[in-house]
Amino acid sequence: MNIVCLDLEGVLVPEIWIAFSQASGIPELKRTTRDEPDYDKLMRWRLEILRAHHLGLADIQRVISTIEPMEGAKAFLDALREQTQVLILSDTFTQFATPLMRKLGWPTIFCNELIVGQDGMIVDYRIRTAQSKLSTVRALQSIGFQTIASGDSYNDLGMIQASRAGFLFRSPEAIRNAYPQIPACETYDELKNLILQAL
Amino acid sequence: MNIVCLDLEGVLVPEIWIAFSQASGIPELKRTTRDEPDYDKLMRWRLEILRAHHLGLADIQRVISTIEPMEGAKAFLDALREQTQVLILSDTFTQFATPLMRKLGWPTIFCNELIVGQDGMIVDYRIRTAQSKLSTVRALQSIGFQTIASGDSYNDLGMIQASRAGFLFRSPEAIRNAYPQIPACETYDELKNLILQAL
Repeated sequence: MNIVCLDLEGVLVPEIWIAFSQASGIPELKRTTRDEPDYDKLMRWRLEILRAHHLGLADIQRVISTIEPMEGAKAFLDALREQTQVLILSDTFTQFATPLMRKLGWPTIFCNELIVGQDGMIVDYRIRTAQSKLSTVRALQSIGFQTIASGDSYNDLGMIQASRAGFLFRSPEAIRNAYPQIPACETYDELKNLILQAL
Repeated sequence: MNIVCLDLEGVLVPEIWIAFSQASGIPELKRTTRDEPDYDKLMRWRLEILRAHHLGLADIQRVISTIEPMEGAKAFLDALREQTQVLILSDTFTQFATPLMRKLGWPTIFCNELIVGQDGMIVDYRIRTAQSKLSTVRALQSIGFQTIASGDSYNDLGMIQASRAGFLFRSPEAIRNAYPQIPACETYDELKNLILQAL
């Protein structure tokens, strides 16, 4: 029995913090783990900026709801969901993902969670599990699934390499060059064909 | 982080074999584990009857596509999917469930699988994992989820009792009486409220 595990950002929707930075007009929020490798420090700094701009969760979700899935993403996902089971595995937060899940037809997503205060401001965040994508793929395998995985980034390599089949999608050249054994593609048609062949 | 695990047959759609028996006009297929407690024997007998009626998978799916989800099921599921993550955990077969998943807006379903021959006839079946609902809930818990479960039948009791919250839905009186500690309800509005309170 197969299940397809897809990364979200960079595969189905744009990088949420970067798109949010543009949509909200707060350029500081473009900072990523490349600039600040300590993820917890980066997240606390981001939450500080949101507070400084008096942006509560509802405001942020309003901005995120102006972000569109990548062109062709919904049709790709719809076609896949008719053929097999699909889970989106992401390190983003449920509350950020929700407006985008609505636009993608409510696929199932496993991600992390923001902790929101009584006043609607984000006060903290909660990581579901360590190495979430790899751990999730391993848990699915433990209950009889064969996994097929695709993503674009370093945090996708674990689930891709642990899966029966795995594909890089629109990955940076550095990753493609470092992992030439992982098939890589650029279009949804190519990715769909690779997945359907693997099924 | 929460995830809701729902039984399929009796909760969102009618019992598939019984509905199929009616829709196909093959009354023998009404036989259940109450009449033949050996599941494997029952399934092999069912597959024999399908073969005798020259019903291949495509024919069966055509009949199943005339079966409708229970009244209010899709609205209930849609409302739930906007609030939290939902998985359908079922002991039916992917290929039988697919026409019904289409009508329910393609929720994610974890179930079993039929093995279909070159000629489109069903030759065998494959169980994903032993005690599939309980095992799946345990695997979800191992990757940081708190589960909330609901079902109507004996094979749902394991996941209901292992979950942070669990509810019987339209259960036979015998089960409700034997498990008075499990909250039971009859309508989607009641079930939705119980689940939202537990979230």
